[in-house]
Amino acid sequence: MAKELKELTKRAENYSQWFNDLVVKADMAEQSAVRGCMVIKPYGYAIWEKMQQQLDKMFKETGAQNAYFPLLIPKSFLSKEAEHVEGFAKECAVVTHYRLRAKEDKSGVEVDPAAKLEEELIVRPTSETIIWNTYKNWIHSWRDLPLMCNQWCNVMRWEMRTRPFLRTSEFLWQEGHTAHATREEAEEEAQKMLKVYAKFAEEWMAVPVIQGVKSETERFAGALDTYTIEAMMQDGKALQSGTSHFLGQNFAKAFEVTYLNKDNKPEYVWATSWGVSTRLIGALIMTHSDDNGLVLPPRLAPIQVVIVPISKGDDLQHITERLTPVIEALRKAGITVKYDDADNKRPGFKFADYELKGVPVRLVMGARDLENGTIEVMRRDTLEKETRPIEGIVEYVEQLLEDIQKNIFEKAKAYRDARIYECENYEEFKEKVKDGGFFLCHWDGTAETEAKIKEETQATIRCVPFGVEQTPGVDMVSGKPSKARVIIARSY
Amino acid sequence: MAKELKELTKRAENYSQWFNDLVVKADMAEQSAVRGCMVIKPYGYAIWEKMQQQLDKMFKETGAQNAYFPLLIPKSFLSKEAEHVEGFAKECAVVTHYRLRAKEDKSGVEVDPAAKLEEELIVRPTSETIIWNTYKNWIHSWRDLPLMCNQWCNVMRWEMRTRPFLRTSEFLWQEGHTAHATREEAEEEAQKMLKVYAKFAEEWMAVPVIQGVKSETERFAGALDTYTIEAMMQDGKALQSGTSHFLGQNFAKAFEVTYLNKDNKPEYVWATSWGVSTRLIGALIMTHSDDNGLVLPPRLAPIQVVIVPISKGDDLQHITERLTPVIEALRKAGITVKYDDADNKRPGFKFADYELKGVPVRLVMGARDLENGTIEVMRRDTLEKETRPIEGIVEYVEQLLEDIQKNIFEKAKAYRDARIYECENYEEFKEKVKDGGFFLCHWDGTAETEAKIKEETQATIRCVPFGVEQTPGVDMVSGKPSKARVIIARSY
Repeated sequence: MAKELKELTKRAENYSQWFNDLVVKADMAEQSAVRGCMVIKPYGYAIWEKMQQQLDKMFKETGAQNAYFPLLIPKSFLSKEAEHVEGFAKECAVVTHYRLRAKEDKSGVEVDPAAKLEEELIVRPTSETIIWNTYKNWIHSWRDLPLMCNQWCNVMRWEMRTRPFLRTSEFLWQEGHTAHATREEAEEEAQKMLKVYAKFAEEWMAVPVIQGVKSETERFAGALDTYTIEAMMQDGKALQSGTSHFLGQNFAKAFEVTYLNKDNKPEYVWATSWGVSTRLIGALIMTHSDDNGLVLPPRLAPIQVVIVPISKGDDLQHITERLTPVIEALRKAGITVKYDDADNKRPGFKFADYELKGVPVRLVMGARDLENGTIEVMRRDTLEKETRPIEGIVEYVEQLLEDIQKNIFEKAKAYRDARIYECENYEEFKEKVKDGGFFLCHWDGTAETEAKIKEETQATIRCVPFGVEQTPGVDMVSGKPSKARVIIARSY
Repeated sequence: MAKELKELTKRAENYSQWFNDLVVKADMAEQSAVRGCMVIKPYGYAIWEKMQQQLDKMFKETGAQNAYFPLLIPKSFLSKEAEHVEGFAKECAVVTHYRLRAKEDKSGVEVDPAAKLEEELIVRPTSETIIWNTYKNWIHSWRDLPLMCNQWCNVMRWEMRTRPFLRTSEFLWQEGHTAHATREEAEEEAQKMLKVYAKFAEEWMAVPVIQGVKSETERFAGALDTYTIEAMMQDGKALQSGTSHFLGQNFAKAFEVTYLNKDNKPEYVWATSWGVSTRLIGALIMTHSDDNGLVLPPRLAPIQVVIVPISKGDDLQHITERLTPVIEALRKAGITVKYDDADNKRPGFKFADYELKGVPVRLVMGARDLENGTIEVMRRDTLEKETRPIEGIVEYVEQLLEDIQKNIFEKAKAYRDARIYECENYEEFKEKVKDGGFFLCHWDGTAETEAKIKEETQATIRCVPFGVEQTPGVDMVSGKPSKARVIIARSY
């Protein structure tokens, strides 16, 4: 491991390779035998479980309930919403048969041509169509509204270039689908869920995000508005980390979902959908981690504190005895503790491994510490070590975990804020954007200008940010008048 | 709803129809637009979430960790274990293409023939093959063992005749896959997980189960032994509710998974797998529910206590004021409470609805109760009502929930035990098995006898039960000697 650790590419050398290395070496995930699909390993999955747990709680607090809808969607459903099919039909896994049979030469199995489906089924790339086809039967009157369901599931989009967590053919996510009586209510819901995502990203992942609304080009296929949270990675690129869509009445019309209003008149229902995925784990890794390995926010770390005794025989036994009440007290305080007294690995190996894995706090106790009534504390975010009295260590560690959570957020925010530039000159932009960063630029609102920027710089309009004071100006590319600044950046 | 409730088929009339009706009317699940796939509605899904939460805790206590493996399995993987492919290749959804395109006449989308996969992918019917192909890279030495992963996911088996929860083409489940250094350890693990399932079924679902081992014919495809828990439904049929498989070295050999033992010599790894699915919800419904609707065990009920005030205006306000501390105290005790003061539904309607939904305890308070300091308590399992002082009601309800949990288990156990018959005579068996029940019969151990029984009576050998004193005897069909009695029954 110590050797392997050395082989972790440095961020400055090759950021992209550093990420790929880290995902594998820290036991987060690995490529599977299926093109573009990853195996999420136990350590990576434990982070996803913690994310799920908190998000699920936050969703339920808004009144959403969980449900489950079919994995396979009839092909004809996809065509019902014109823009939706454009956006998703291109890249999907198609089930055409329902049986295999043994080959005649018994060398294996082959598709049984007699078992061809009348209508092909699509592995869901997202579930708007099957859910709205179901909602049709659930919604009759204004009393049935709002209807707010969420599902935790797997989805599949046939991606040509994949990277673990960031872009995989199959990924895990949650998708919320809500139905409302009025346009205002649906718009409010879409914005409310964006705020839930932003709160989760900042308070739990310690990832600062910019909230905003997408340009028409970048909208979800079938939406009237797509709200987004955009995070900045350490290479200055943007990572879209969660989206919430105001779908208008598009899906209600496509699937004929109406309700009787209080005047007993039929009206089409208003819709939203919102989702975050295992991509969040990619955001987490890329925002905080360093050349020594992962740096995890304490609130989502599978192991929050690791304790390593350095001693053998009787000394080890005495150290363990001294630490037992400490471990119990930490666990009682709700902290996940691992006590690593395994004797088949050297302390140096353990230290490197827990650094690689991003365990926020490491406590070490040797024979001399025991004698002195002290313990060594290391925090993963700054790698600072100090020796402290064992008395009061539980309270100290509790506070330290909070400090780390706060510190890595502040650090990421300072890093990002130093890389947000107002820019008025397209030539300057073209040069500067190569080094990453978020560019606050005036935009004339046309798809032509947007396309030109993308073609010439690979950068895209990430969003019209909320909470930024907007004044009219001039588009840096076309010279035409602009009402507002947008954030332009290269992205994942 | 009151009207709809009346339409619930009586169990005595048509047990099967009663189940189908109940699933839909109690908002548990419904058929989807995709053949054989159901939509699990929020109320049904809430039960699944409670099951998951408890099972997940129990799995983790055994040392298992969660992970996630790909949905799609390369066709060639299925062929690697000879029996496995026999058992699963017949009934599977096959992905052959990865893109759709617009039809020329723009009337919809069609499969793009240019996007044909080189090797077809199978929607997982179970994940032994892809997981063992992954374990190959995770297991090198005895230090890497045991390896115990579980995944919560969807799987797909192309069933011709489906019923909600009991047999659906897609279903949700968990599958544990463990790797061990020795045969003994793997066998022990398989049996340990069976006990976990039995404990969960009995203590959480309040469903008594018989633990045992399957006959060779009924084994999982690729296993050396399949352990099972078998529950009896109210029609006397068996429902296989969970299985745990000792897989020997079959998958290790098929995927070349070896480890270096302490003498540094390569050996094949020993394996188990174990799973339970949304079928458990079917077992839950069919074991306890009655002609008025669901009866849910308090430990898994999404709502444990419903409180309905019967009054309007000022009285309602006073009742709500009086009940607020009660509700708070119940919630503080960890009880899920719904306070239903909605004024758009009559109390009678509410009562029928909560009975249908199986809420274990109903509290009702009217103006006179408020005056008298009393509250009406109804328990769903017996439908008994009593009026009690409001003082001490929290402790009373806590105890009542425990009593209900215990009572429905005892009731189900008594029902089952009264329908377990020792039977020595095949003619008598043939007649009696039509009315359901578990038959403890001697069996000569041959597949021929087993097939004959199945053909002539539709009954199958459910298991060789554990914990039954076995004495040698004579097979009731063949007259040949038998070492042990098996349980024979018709089943779902």
